[in-house]
Amino acid sequence: MNMQEKNRDTAFHQIVVEKFQNIQSSICSALELADGSGQKFSKDEWQRPEGGGGLTRVFSQGDVIEKGGVNFSKVYGEVTSLMAEKLHMTEGNFLATGVSIVLHPQNPFVPIIHMNIRYFESQGNDGSFTYWFGGGIDLTPHYVDKEDAQYFHNSLRKVCDLYHPNFYPKYKKWADDYFFIKHRNETRGIGGVFFDRVQESENFSKENLFDFVLDLGESFAPIYTHLMHKNKDKTYNDKHKQWQYLRRGRYVEFNLVYDAGTKFGLETNGRIESILMSLPPQAQWTYDFKPEANSPEEKTLQMLKKGIDWV
Amino acid sequence: MNMQEKNRDTAFHQIVVEKFQNIQSSICSALELADGSGQKFSKDEWQRPEGGGGLTRVFSQGDVIEKGGVNFSKVYGEVTSLMAEKLHMTEGNFLATGVSIVLHPQNPFVPIIHMNIRYFESQGNDGSFTYWFGGGIDLTPHYVDKEDAQYFHNSLRKVCDLYHPNFYPKYKKWADDYFFIKHRNETRGIGGVFFDRVQESENFSKENLFDFVLDLGESFAPIYTHLMHKNKDKTYNDKHKQWQYLRRGRYVEFNLVYDAGTKFGLETNGRIESILMSLPPQAQWTYDFKPEANSPEEKTLQMLKKGIDWV
Repeated sequence: MNMQEKNRDTAFHQIVVEKFQNIQSSICSALELADGSGQKFSKDEWQRPEGGGGLTRVFSQGDVIEKGGVNFSKVYGEVTSLMAEKLHMTEGNFLATGVSIVLHPQNPFVPIIHMNIRYFESQGNDGSFTYWFGGGIDLTPHYVDKEDAQYFHNSLRKVCDLYHPNFYPKYKKWADDYFFIKHRNETRGIGGVFFDRVQESENFSKENLFDFVLDLGESFAPIYTHLMHKNKDKTYNDKHKQWQYLRRGRYVEFNLVYDAGTKFGLETNGRIESILMSLPPQAQWTYDFKPEANSPEEKTLQMLKKGIDWV
Repeated sequence: MNMQEKNRDTAFHQIVVEKFQNIQSSICSALELADGSGQKFSKDEWQRPEGGGGLTRVFSQGDVIEKGGVNFSKVYGEVTSLMAEKLHMTEGNFLATGVSIVLHPQNPFVPIIHMNIRYFESQGNDGSFTYWFGGGIDLTPHYVDKEDAQYFHNSLRKVCDLYHPNFYPKYKKWADDYFFIKHRNETRGIGGVFFDRVQESENFSKENLFDFVLDLGESFAPIYTHLMHKNKDKTYNDKHKQWQYLRRGRYVEFNLVYDAGTKFGLETNGRIESILMSLPPQAQWTYDFKPEANSPEEKTLQMLKKGIDWV
């Protein structure tokens, strides 16, 4: 690539970084307001020795959110041979920036949510330039509520449909396949949308893609605060809490065994506390737990499958 | 190998299986007695569709042991290409048998313990025969007590020294390296001994090795019941429990991210509830938790390092 292209892309990633930081900030404000406890997200700035760093924002013991993190990072440096192998790339330099969120609510009737938007670019030592976007939002209800599931998937479909009629079906399937706990033969939750390494195509410019990713990021706060408000005052008992803890155990299993971002972070000496901020405040494991027949817990298990059409 | 050798080895693994089952049974009895609650280990027999099965014995909510499992398995079948790759073997048939234990105590001053003894043999399609033993015992105190650590390592050294003066130093170092949580730069606990794929050598017959493995298995109950009795009545408060939950979180991280047996089981469609029986009843994660300076918690962290000479 020539200098002109290089400068254009440098300018581009600066815009991405700025917009991502704005999204982080506005999501934190919206969540603080919806939580209603008056608590604020803490701010923890960190540097990565090899280049870049991030701002980790953490919330704990709110009225609605028990533990949550909204993480921004922008890291850059050398594409090491480990990265080149893991990411199927050529050696050179890279820049990766993203916003990553996981929220664990107090009330078992409020779902766990995860959102991530990310931009990656790299310049190979051979002069090549490549970039991609990735992202997704997925929901992990402790108890699947069909109305909420429909609302959630319809909201995502609306964002997708603004850009391409194939996006929702394609990225919904991708989420089903990605958020799957193979050793349990269960999906993590009811899915959502997920995509990775998406680049411009004939009908779709880099700027279009960026707009889609931003719209997805901006849809997060209205979608989740709606689910918070709707469910936060539902009454629950010890049995519901136990079930919540067991489901959180499954969340831990997914994140530590399968999640690509977590694995990559652990293998490449990432900032551990920011990576593992996704883990729940508390989780339980009970040997061979089986919910009672026809209980809400059993009905939830039956809906933790791939391929359910929620819209 | 000729038929005579084949028959000898078949007879040999039958003896291994029988002795391992006896060890499982006597350990359960010793633990029930030491727990003192009158509770018994449950018995859960399972079959593996591809060949073999096991007996999973589980204990929960005792007076001393909050959750524990003592698992026996004997599985056999085809060495699939996945196994051949993972275990660096030739394709053919295998038999694997072992006893595996993890105990999570109620009182934070009683340590978590893990023990595993295993025997593996396989016959390649090319006619080759191979076998190995593996095993180990390691201790994960929530609070490191130097006296207990010394007692524990000395007990293991005594068993090792009966067989070879190099066993303890060699297998102690192996445990330090194996039970290491790389992303935390911490050992899981104070180690112990660990060895894998050990075969006969010039001065050491297969029968000698087997005796060593059995002695190690038989040392488990006296070692751990001593630590139970010594620490079970120590008073503790909420702060100690919190710390116990955080340390259990680390235990989960090790087992799901690094433990070779767990990973292999998850990848090869093993019996999930028996594999994940090692996970604690309850665990916690707190963002960026730092113990107070000079607190017992901080002192424990300082001792979660490789290469400490406890004997």
